[in-house]
Amino acid sequence: MAVYTEVTDEALVRFLARYEIGALVAFQGIAEGVENSNYALKTTQGDFILTLYEKRVTRKDLPYFLALMAYLRGQGLPCPMPIRARSGESLQELAGRAATITSFLPGVWPRHVQPFHCEHLGAALAGLHIASSGFTMTRYNRLGPSSWAGLLAASLSRADELRPGLAADLQAWLPRILAEWPRTLPQGQIHADLFPDNVFFLDGRISGLIDFYFACTDSLAYDIAICMNSWCFTGQADFNTEAARALLRGYQAVRQLCEAELAALPILARGAALRFLLTRLYDWLHTSPGAFVTLKDPLEYYHRLRFHIAVSGASVYGV
Amino acid sequence: MAVYTEVTDEALVRFLARYEIGALVAFQGIAEGVENSNYALKTTQGDFILTLYEKRVTRKDLPYFLALMAYLRGQGLPCPMPIRARSGESLQELAGRAATITSFLPGVWPRHVQPFHCEHLGAALAGLHIASSGFTMTRYNRLGPSSWAGLLAASLSRADELRPGLAADLQAWLPRILAEWPRTLPQGQIHADLFPDNVFFLDGRISGLIDFYFACTDSLAYDIAICMNSWCFTGQADFNTEAARALLRGYQAVRQLCEAELAALPILARGAALRFLLTRLYDWLHTSPGAFVTLKDPLEYYHRLRFHIAVSGASVYGV
Repeated sequence: MAVYTEVTDEALVRFLARYEIGALVAFQGIAEGVENSNYALKTTQGDFILTLYEKRVTRKDLPYFLALMAYLRGQGLPCPMPIRARSGESLQELAGRAATITSFLPGVWPRHVQPFHCEHLGAALAGLHIASSGFTMTRYNRLGPSSWAGLLAASLSRADELRPGLAADLQAWLPRILAEWPRTLPQGQIHADLFPDNVFFLDGRISGLIDFYFACTDSLAYDIAICMNSWCFTGQADFNTEAARALLRGYQAVRQLCEAELAALPILARGAALRFLLTRLYDWLHTSPGAFVTLKDPLEYYHRLRFHIAVSGASVYGV
Repeated sequence: MAVYTEVTDEALVRFLARYEIGALVAFQGIAEGVENSNYALKTTQGDFILTLYEKRVTRKDLPYFLALMAYLRGQGLPCPMPIRARSGESLQELAGRAATITSFLPGVWPRHVQPFHCEHLGAALAGLHIASSGFTMTRYNRLGPSSWAGLLAASLSRADELRPGLAADLQAWLPRILAEWPRTLPQGQIHADLFPDNVFFLDGRISGLIDFYFACTDSLAYDIAICMNSWCFTGQADFNTEAARALLRGYQAVRQLCEAELAALPILARGAALRFLLTRLYDWLHTSPGAFVTLKDPLEYYHRLRFHIAVSGASVYGV
């Protein structure tokens, strides 16, 4: 679920009075997303999303996220537009949390990914990378390679509870991935979490890109590697080359990848799989049973990581 | 949360084609309700709610629930209207579940209940009881007094895990409540679960009564006793007499309670508290830790039951 913080009706009405978006009509918690509390908000002027930022989102990062969304929206991307209060600020406070209202985006995220979705995704991702080239703020990727050793250390002693040998595999793979990690690829703003549930489709086209709360400044091609992990596997670890080819085709129709980026896809894909494996493993081992959060299976990314480690070159990814 | 069953985008589009409610615009899981999977559905014709019935709702009961909602809506009550498919049927199938689309109701449920809410609630509840008097279907209350001994037996051996002495208290109280249970009060269709999160308010008035999936044919005054338990306590067990008085005032402005109903309020309130205590206790002890359902605290109703047991007469409830 994704409602961690309850908002009283009186507090909500007072909160809305800070905006010029009409009067309250309806307000319902949304059962999607895992990091923040999200509410569908309907006013006399239309539909909006109210987000309360929970503890995993660092407050000082919010201006970057909100500015990036507003900038990309201004560039024509279908991402949520942070709504400014009468004060001019889109970042507000509600129920003891930082809070924003953003515009509502139509569409449905694809539960059953097909190659045409991946082609549209690739084009949208390249569009995001190009559009953000004029964006001047930056944010360090706190879940990038420099964080992985620490994440692993925090889970290592109990990793084998999930799968015997998992700890040893991770200890063997991590240094190799870090040693090969590319540092000189084209940089820019990346979404860094563009999973299927963050991309809405309507009538076969992308109608929304949401959840920019892992966005950061990093290698653009790493964003592709994240999407290859989250969009191009069937089940746990059946790689769908057709989907990957569609993703790259869509991307390169908008932004051509350089030789170094194409050659780096295998190592970037390993790193992306490792990042989601490590954060899911951490959550699995450190979330109290009473938290009632739907945890994601870390082993899904273990199997994907194993696939990427066996890959000999970028041609496997449809290059 | 309340999304147990995922619906693929293709299945959803095929499902909507059975209806004349326009084309898909958006589809989002709702994080409220605990029994069924609920989705906010937006089409080119407006907003709707899609419900998939999960295992706790018995399929053969669905025609009663849907007919009752449609009947009450026809009588002017603000409850969800089941939408008929082109076939004429509002009960359909989707993702292996019985499913219905109902109309969307505006409003927000009161997180912070105040006496004016209770007065409106009472009037709406009486309106529901009067409006349903012409409804000819019936449904046995499967969570009524005849079920309580079985529910207790299923939890007795582990009840003291929640609170030492809980098992002994329940064993002492249950036979007394059953022995005093009134059997000859005015009967009709009752909602039987009209908690604050099932009542929407807009501009200080009731705009929606939802979740009729515990509705049944039983003593009308028992519905008031359920509302007294769920609306008229502050915290765990501070009874708010002002709220109860407002509830009864609102109710009696629409439907006068007879002497027998007023006199029965204490025993009905005990039974209502016991019913929610027993079902919450059962869920607490029998839900697997991996189910990721937000369980409700059984002890809240233990404290309320203790309050009602100490009550000497109906005057405490504001009669």
